Amino acid sequence: MVPRYARPQMTALWEPEARFRIWFEIEAHATEKLGELGVVPPSAAKALWDWWATEPAIDVPAIDAIEAVTKHDVIAFLTWVAEQVGDEARFMHQGMTSSDVLDTCLAVQLSRAADLLIDDLDKLLEVIKRRAYEHKLTPTIGRSHGIHAEPVTFGLKMAEAYAEFSRCKARLIAARAEVATCAISGAVGTFANIDPRVEEHVAEKLGLAVEPVSTQVIPRDRHAMFFATLGVIASSIERLAVEVRHLQRTEVLEAEEYFSPGQKGSSAMPHKRNPVLTENLTGLARMVRSYALPAMENVALWHERDISHSSVERYIGPDATITLDFALGRLTGVIDKLLVYPERMMKNLDKMGGLVHSQRVLLALTQAGVSREDSYRYVQRNAMKVWESDGQLSLMELLKADPDVAAALTAEQIDEKFNLDYHFRQVDTIFRRVFGE
Amino acid sequence: MVPRYARPQMTALWEPEARFRIWFEIEAHATEKLGELGVVPPSAAKALWDWWATEPAIDVPAIDAIEAVTKHDVIAFLTWVAEQVGDEARFMHQGMTSSDVLDTCLAVQLSRAADLLIDDLDKLLEVIKRRAYEHKLTPTIGRSHGIHAEPVTFGLKMAEAYAEFSRCKARLIAARAEVATCAISGAVGTFANIDPRVEEHVAEKLGLAVEPVSTQVIPRDRHAMFFATLGVIASSIERLAVEVRHLQRTEVLEAEEYFSPGQKGSSAMPHKRNPVLTENLTGLARMVRSYALPAMENVALWHERDISHSSVERYIGPDATITLDFALGRLTGVIDKLLVYPERMMKNLDKMGGLVHSQRVLLALTQAGVSREDSYRYVQRNAMKVWESDGQLSLMELLKADPDVAAALTAEQIDEKFNLDYHFRQVDTIFRRVFGE
Amino acid sequence: MVPRYARPQMTALWEPEARFRIWFEIEAHATEKLGELGVVPPSAAKALWDWWATEPAIDVPAIDAIEAVTKHDVIAFLTWVAEQVGDEARFMHQGMTSSDVLDTCLAVQLSRAADLLIDDLDKLLEVIKRRAYEHKLTPTIGRSHGIHAEPVTFGLKMAEAYAEFSRCKARLIAARAEVATCAISGAVGTFANIDPRVEEHVAEKLGLAVEPVSTQVIPRDRHAMFFATLGVIASSIERLAVEVRHLQRTEVLEAEEYFSPGQKGSSAMPHKRNPVLTENLTGLARMVRSYALPAMENVALWHERDISHSSVERYIGPDATITLDFALGRLTGVIDKLLVYPERMMKNLDKMGGLVHSQRVLLALTQAGVSREDSYRYVQRNAMKVWESDGQLSLMELLKADPDVAAALTAEQIDEKFNLDYHFRQVDTIFRRVFGE
Amino acid sequence: MVPRYARPQMTALWEPEARFRIWFEIEAHATEKLGELGVVPPSAAKALWDWWATEPAIDVPAIDAIEAVTKHDVIAFLTWVAEQVGDEARFMHQGMTSSDVLDTCLAVQLSRAADLLIDDLDKLLEVIKRRAYEHKLTPTIGRSHGIHAEPVTFGLKMAEAYAEFSRCKARLIAARAEVATCAISGAVGTFANIDPRVEEHVAEKLGLAVEPVSTQVIPRDRHAMFFATLGVIASSIERLAVEVRHLQRTEVLEAEEYFSPGQKGSSAMPHKRNPVLTENLTGLARMVRSYALPAMENVALWHERDISHSSVERYIGPDATITLDFALGRLTGVIDKLLVYPERMMKNLDKMGGLVHSQRVLLALTQAGVSREDSYRYVQRNAMKVWESDGQLSLMELLKADPDVAAALTAEQIDEKFNLDYHFRQVDTIFRRVFGE
Repeated sequence: MVPRYARPQMTALWEPEARFRIWFEIEAHATEKLGELGVVPPSAAKALWDWWATEPAIDVPAIDAIEAVTKHDVIAFLTWVAEQVGDEARFMHQGMTSSDVLDTCLAVQLSRAADLLIDDLDKLLEVIKRRAYEHKLTPTIGRSHGIHAEPVTFGLKMAEAYAEFSRCKARLIAARAEVATCAISGAVGTFANIDPRVEEHVAEKLGLAVEPVSTQVIPRDRHAMFFATLGVIASSIERLAVEVRHLQRTEVLEAEEYFSPGQKGSSAMPHKRNPVLTENLTGLARMVRSYALPAMENVALWHERDISHSSVERYIGPDATITLDFALGRLTGVIDKLLVYPERMMKNLDKMGGLVHSQRVLLALTQAGVSREDSYRYVQRNAMKVWESDGQLSLMELLKADPDVAAALTAEQIDEKFNLDYHFRQVDTIFRRVFGE
Repeated sequence: MVPRYARPQMTALWEPEARFRIWFEIEAHATEKLGELGVVPPSAAKALWDWWATEPAIDVPAIDAIEAVTKHDVIAFLTWVAEQVGDEARFMHQGMTSSDVLDTCLAVQLSRAADLLIDDLDKLLEVIKRRAYEHKLTPTIGRSHGIHAEPVTFGLKMAEAYAEFSRCKARLIAARAEVATCAISGAVGTFANIDPRVEEHVAEKLGLAVEPVSTQVIPRDRHAMFFATLGVIASSIERLAVEVRHLQRTEVLEAEEYFSPGQKGSSAMPHKRNPVLTENLTGLARMVRSYALPAMENVALWHERDISHSSVERYIGPDATITLDFALGRLTGVIDKLLVYPERMMKNLDKMGGLVHSQRVLLALTQAGVSREDSYRYVQRNAMKVWESDGQLSLMELLKADPDVAAALTAEQIDEKFNLDYHFRQVDTIFRRVFGE
Repeated sequence: MVPRYARPQMTALWEPEARFRIWFEIEAHATEKLGELGVVPPSAAKALWDWWATEPAIDVPAIDAIEAVTKHDVIAFLTWVAEQVGDEARFMHQGMTSSDVLDTCLAVQLSRAADLLIDDLDKLLEVIKRRAYEHKLTPTIGRSHGIHAEPVTFGLKMAEAYAEFSRCKARLIAARAEVATCAISGAVGTFANIDPRVEEHVAEKLGLAVEPVSTQVIPRDRHAMFFATLGVIASSIERLAVEVRHLQRTEVLEAEEYFSPGQKGSSAMPHKRNPVLTENLTGLARMVRSYALPAMENVALWHERDISHSSVERYIGPDATITLDFALGRLTGVIDKLLVYPERMMKNLDKMGGLVHSQRVLLALTQAGVSREDSYRYVQRNAMKVWESDGQLSLMELLKADPDVAAALTAEQIDEKFNLDYHFRQVDTIFRRVFGE
Repeated sequence: MVPRYARPQMTALWEPEARFRIWFEIEAHATEKLGELGVVPPSAAKALWDWWATEPAIDVPAIDAIEAVTKHDVIAFLTWVAEQVGDEARFMHQGMTSSDVLDTCLAVQLSRAADLLIDDLDKLLEVIKRRAYEHKLTPTIGRSHGIHAEPVTFGLKMAEAYAEFSRCKARLIAARAEVATCAISGAVGTFANIDPRVEEHVAEKLGLAVEPVSTQVIPRDRHAMFFATLGVIASSIERLAVEVRHLQRTEVLEAEEYFSPGQKGSSAMPHKRNPVLTENLTGLARMVRSYALPAMENVALWHERDISHSSVERYIGPDATITLDFALGRLTGVIDKLLVYPERMMKNLDKMGGLVHSQRVLLALTQAGVSREDSYRYVQRNAMKVWESDGQLSLMELLKADPDVAAALTAEQIDEKFNLDYHFRQVDTIFRRVFGE
């Protein structure tokens, strides 16, 4: 976890105290059910919850000190709780194994993390939608291969991002369901020493599903799917970040990250306004993506379980969720305050001497009966002249002067092919598909 | 694609002929709708379909020869079709761009590939289920950290695999939906020169959903999610493969890959029976997993599109699906014919002098009023003696002879804790959860 | 392997025939030494080499047919050779194990592949150097964050690429040495049934080093290092490819991939000249990079060996080397024929109203005694005006008109700060460092 | 960074204070040379060093507070230093850009980290060597595919590890040289405002090489190579860790991680001794390996530089080096104190009824004139009987009773083939190759 790329709410989820609180809840809920089932005295759970009701502070250093001796984190925690609660605490953890606590706790942490990320996505979607409608009909050049192609609107760019992050949200909801399961099944998962109803009870109390079959651990294909999904979301963040970086290039300058007063772009070059936030997001995306692989390698545990997954999860559990949360927040801010320059967009759009309209002429020629191959050739030979003139020549004028073209199309027909609005007739259709309105 | 790890049905999907057939269907369906809409003469589609009805061979080398000149695959294909169909063919591709064809074709290929993979998973699940019921109550030692823990059944191992691959199937169905979309939206995706109803028509005919917003290309977050999902499935294959490899180790030998007569395990050591199929699956899993990353890097295309994704997909489209298909088939065969040795399982289970029952004694002591810490200590000191005797001493006897234990538990109570069936009381519950029966 | 991204010489290395030829050489050299050592009759090697001198065709389908029965590739090959050579062939492979043949063969293939790649790099370096000297003093704007920074020359861009690919070459030479080892050590590598002098002999004949300690297989950390190195080289290819893609953007257009007559950029838009080769290289780089990971996962084989590495290597051995060879060749072609537009570079350089010179003014102010903070503020306030004017205002004029600046610097001093040559004074130094001339 | 997988010396390298100290040294050395060159007053450097000689504490929160305003870390640091040193400090950083400081600092950090890692490897190598000689002739079964193959010694296993980590050390030394370069070249790397002699001076003072051509940043192919190398080393750690995990399996139990008094293996099963350290190392290896990919993605910065690499390096710089340092230390401890059980090794070796000697018989038969195919058949049919008897039958006895075998070999000849020492005749050779003694 890199503090500068972390926000407090997500970070708090991964702090020792939060973990110990979840552990307590798991143990107390389990003890409660064990009491109901007559396995332990009902007073045991009562003692635990009574203590809990006093809102006790969790003494993390004390627990760590015990762990330094026992070399076992859950035993250390249970020992500390027993010191606080007293004799009744010995009934805790009856028939359970450490993994019951650890894996169910991780499920709680990851599903809470997913909730925060879903909330992040909602905020991002809201901002993107606002900018999409704001610029629904702001013309800008569409680019394929970095080369001017045909006109689009800035709103359409935003609509694509909205559709993409809507998919990300749906994926994240699915990924959350993958990891939100509870396992209280005892050693090697046979329930030999613990009634499955304890698991059902704890699952219900914590808002988790029951893990159908665990083997002391919750199977790690679930977590692999979770982290792979975060990697895909990070890649979508990268896409939008790269778009902004391109738009802010000096020669393009159709949009800019908001530049706050007092900010210094460069210690050496005072005129610079750099897209540092989106460059940063590009890097963060690389990190979140990279965590998918160790998560996948974690799946093939040996037999009923080994513990090789654990160290990996100590890194990627916090790092992937905290980084993605930060990145979504940062991207939301970037889009929210993005400086958009419609005049510059129009200026760029115009700079190619009308080349962006070439396809419409091509179609008109074929519709006028010219073969596809000839049409392509007529348009291309004129287009190439315009291209080489660096936008100084006008495609419209050249076409009118080309005898082959003129034989098929009148000047008026050619004029009509250079009308910008023509390209935006389906913007409503697309918006309806994306925003459902 | 490595021929030895490929099966014909999946491979055929990726051959040039299959691709060109899909291209034709896309173009012909599109021309059909364009005819209905009055954009091109209705006779155009008729000419195409009439030719198609003659079941023409696709002349791949001829198309390649044209591409060598035009350096553009779709134009080469259209040119070749025009040569076959004649003049009416010039109305094909009206208002479309190459990506409309290429991306929709990829959607068809990936969704057909997904169908084969789903079928593979169904076959694997069926085999796993059969072996699960066959060995529902076959006792075997459960192992955590590679160390004997407590008894499980071989059927439970299979049940876990069944649950895991059921999840894989659900994920694959979701991943299929991700990529099964049709885009016929023209240059930069604005539908400027093509009516969205063409897209709707082609989508319906090909069993695809309409892509809500494309930007000349279908957004690559969809494909990233698809390949990431394949990577997770491959990881589950690895898990089961590693389980078999462990079980076949000389010292364990609880199961073996089927060994066909005439097969030679080693050119040098004639006695060897090696788990080569599952070792192979372990390697194949590494490959399928690795394809997730370039798929994620493909998401951040520049502006409306660049073509960097294309070469990546030429590798991973075939390689990931063909390899996974082969691996699922191989794993199905391995599990189907797996030689399972229950006697050996029981022998291994017994070899620890009863150590696997230690936890039950621990629980009995705490329930008899001994503190958790003391109980742990009493059991551990005897367990350690057994451990160090290499299974020659009996935990049961040592416990009976331990005065602290004897003070809390009678010999009969101790005996009862070493009963194997005790551990299998919840096997029915778990099977009901997994198989729903 | 994707045929369109493959060149014949590298591909031939990986074809079955090439593999079988290397196998034969290993076996024949080994038999030769075994004959010298008196383990087998000297006539055995003679029989093998005599047959080899007839330049026999390798009947791959026949060998495959035998393998279909024996399920063991080396035994199949030995059987086929024995059929050709006759009785003396039974002395082949004495005391060896299949891995001796397979791993030493892979070493030969990878080192030959490395030789081709080193040759590719030499060609690329030569081309880059030529372009570097050609444009040693061609001014162009240097960009950080995609934003105009200060002037550089196009030759400097090439010099950086030269230095980078020189490092790649050095890495590749080191990576070649990593994998160029010979192991003929028999089952589990103990030389129990084969004299180490056989290994030394074969190594010498094949131009390999002796593997100090093998365990039936050559340790896979060597191959991991090899493929990781290819991944780094691919990343450098991506860097240069991305540079070209940026330079070819419509708004920048400082360079273009060579556009051959007859080439069609887009089926829909005839005016387009797209940087498709460098986009393609970007995708290929993603693939080569991705192969590093399964290669690293291959390292942790079980005990003396398992065979999980083998399937991975059947993919990445050919795919990584063939793809990288193709990519280096393609990149060499791109740079060789790159269309460079110095006028456009100058036009872009000028378009910022002199902002690129801001730092020199900043320094001049501090040297004239203004505090760093004040200097920064004076320059920035003027720079911002120029920036917002979209290059219409001149920084030089504004600074002259700024009373705070004018108080510290004369108009002549300000003029001097806008001299372009000032920036190129150290180009010679850098070229000397890079090209050593 | 996960504190439980971190050691103080490596961690300290990455703390803000360490970074600021290096920054100061870079700036002060640069100012010194600028003074010599007459660009700034010589008194400037003196003022800086005088202040430094007072061993001032670095007030990290104060610098952070300034950065919160300026949003620029280097400017914040310079401002803070200026506050401490006074007026003379304004000459610092003359002609430099932030990257000069940041990248050179990273070079210092990474090369110091490499020094620690090289030291770690030396310690590991020493421990491995000791165990290798200790068990040079301790017989144990060699296993291929997890199946008993032929005898090796435990010393040979250690010798392989020694050779492998010796290669790792050589790679790390090369990787260190990759990143140990100094760049003080100013904006976009042209030295326009800074004399190259400043760079040479700082490089020399800090023990770095001069970066031949930088572009404001040091090219990231260097760092990619560095982190890829760490990934390979991590993979070798995984290999040895997996070996220990296998040896500690209950059924194998030929070696065990040291088990300290008071350690609890399981909260539920008191008898367990789990290989948790090596399982942990397996997970840590996955993490270090994963960092190679974002490092490779960092190479393709845009034009002269973008800052997307920076966030990646904030993660992987500390995480990769701290984790690898911890892992090497942990592995050293594991091997140092590894409990090795020669009796158990011998017991396992014997348990196959002599099958491990089958190859020697095979060779003897061919040398006695039996064809290779027949020899294989004779041995295999007896070997299979032994295999199926679970080691109850003796291969030696069966072979003596087989008429085909008896026709070729006498009982004495057969006896001789079952001699264990035969396999270890070349152990000296291998040790000489590996340890050079």
